[in-house]
Amino acid sequence: MGSETLQLDEVGVGIVGVGLIGGSIAAALKSRGYRGRVIGLGRSVERLQAARDAGMLDDIATRTEEMMPRVSLAVVCTPVDRIAADVRSLAASAQPGTLLTDAGSVKASICRELEPLRGPIAFIGSHPMAGSEKTGFENSHPELFRDRVCIVTPQPGDSPATRQRVAAFWKFLGMRIEELTPAEHDEAVGLTSHFPHLLASLLSAMLPERYRSFVGTGFRDTTRIAAGDPELWRAILEDNAPNLQQAFAAFQKLCDELGLAESGSSLSPGRLKKMLEQAKKNRDALDADN
Amino acid sequence: MGSETLQLDEVGVGIVGVGLIGGSIAAALKSRGYRGRVIGLGRSVERLQAARDAGMLDDIATRTEEMMPRVSLAVVCTPVDRIAADVRSLAASAQPGTLLTDAGSVKASICRELEPLRGPIAFIGSHPMAGSEKTGFENSHPELFRDRVCIVTPQPGDSPATRQRVAAFWKFLGMRIEELTPAEHDEAVGLTSHFPHLLASLLSAMLPERYRSFVGTGFRDTTRIAAGDPELWRAILEDNAPNLQQAFAAFQKLCDELGLAESGSSLSPGRLKKMLEQAKKNRDALDADN
Repeated sequence: MGSETLQLDEVGVGIVGVGLIGGSIAAALKSRGYRGRVIGLGRSVERLQAARDAGMLDDIATRTEEMMPRVSLAVVCTPVDRIAADVRSLAASAQPGTLLTDAGSVKASICRELEPLRGPIAFIGSHPMAGSEKTGFENSHPELFRDRVCIVTPQPGDSPATRQRVAAFWKFLGMRIEELTPAEHDEAVGLTSHFPHLLASLLSAMLPERYRSFVGTGFRDTTRIAAGDPELWRAILEDNAPNLQQAFAAFQKLCDELGLAESGSSLSPGRLKKMLEQAKKNRDALDADN
Repeated sequence: MGSETLQLDEVGVGIVGVGLIGGSIAAALKSRGYRGRVIGLGRSVERLQAARDAGMLDDIATRTEEMMPRVSLAVVCTPVDRIAADVRSLAASAQPGTLLTDAGSVKASICRELEPLRGPIAFIGSHPMAGSEKTGFENSHPELFRDRVCIVTPQPGDSPATRQRVAAFWKFLGMRIEELTPAEHDEAVGLTSHFPHLLASLLSAMLPERYRSFVGTGFRDTTRIAAGDPELWRAILEDNAPNLQQAFAAFQKLCDELGLAESGSSLSPGRLKKMLEQAKKNRDALDADN
């Protein structure tokens, strides 16, 4: 892999929100031999102390001023509807040269709001595509990011050096980097992550209790992500509504072609077969990629 | 478990269609100590010989007349649109007292067509709810059915003794039995299996190649079953169209409430949150059941 030979030239790393993602970043930094200081910022001292006692953090803070002067890079791992405000708050007490990034599942709205952050204290958006339906640092894992894709969304004003620095951070955790614009990110991830979450959740929400015993592995797999945190996902889906509506329109078109909306009529066997063949082809290609 | 102490009082078991399901039935009979003869019926002598060489079958046949006089129970594991004809063909050369059943994922159309089969040679429909997106006896597994539900769909004319006999067969393979009418079965499984397959397939079919690298574990899990055999599923979905259309109407209603169809408007955060909470509650309950 060669990942063991990577260096991370940051004086200290600050992590805002030490949950599943923040905790896994901290754990990955430690297990991959990062020598700098890892500081966790959060609202609950007890939770932070527990994460420190678990060996993930060197130090903890509940106020940005306690953390920012001691780190050269900070990553915000809070819910998407709090990220922009949290980044602004970090910027206010950051040293010149500090790089700020995030781990949010949406990018356009956050990057738009933080576009003025350029120059001595820069923000570049990130989306490490790894996670779990579980929450909390107790479920974090140092290898959560290994071989996964991290989408970074620099904007025209960002310097090559700053881009390289944010990429180096995620690479150090074992990730592969893809660069997209914030809008491209939201469209791609809208289809590959947010729309699947919506479908899985709708399906799970539709299950009457009396049918629970007739559920097999197919239903379980298809709805696994519906066990995710409702409030985290409410914020993500609400933020990316335009792309979800676009995906839904494409979905609806396929359903109409199959005859699903025409109760009492039969489905179109030819189109059904063609759709199922395309579905298998696409799904098999995913397995072949791995 | 106590399953080791179960007896199966059939003189011989015939299996029509030795693929994933038929092969797993054969393997389970063997591994659970069934003493009678297990005979596989199919169209390809080579495939049958390979299954026999793998230790699953005692004997093979390519014509019903070769098999039926030597078995007291036969289970048809062919695609759903061939089951009724295959059962009829078995009945024509079966001994009096022979019990016929199947392993099809739809029940109403098959049971309706086979309703005249009562008396000395009886048919009761079955749906062992176990499977995989893989096919072929090479992927079969003796424990595929263990602790899974088998839905049997007896009809008013079936004697208690015949019902018990079909239940005893599936119990011997490790299954739990649920009795439903054929119509109840198709409605329940329409929602718990066929509609999920349709959603997973539509989602997979929608994935453009350029977004493949942005696919994570969520998309993979949600679409796993879309790798299933397109022709097998075409027949199942086409057969159960009325229940799929009913499930789709309920799905559509939820989508409309969320505002998914109204491009350009925002989603309803309150309804979105409520739906995601219901989805999580239902999904968590499935894990608690296990």
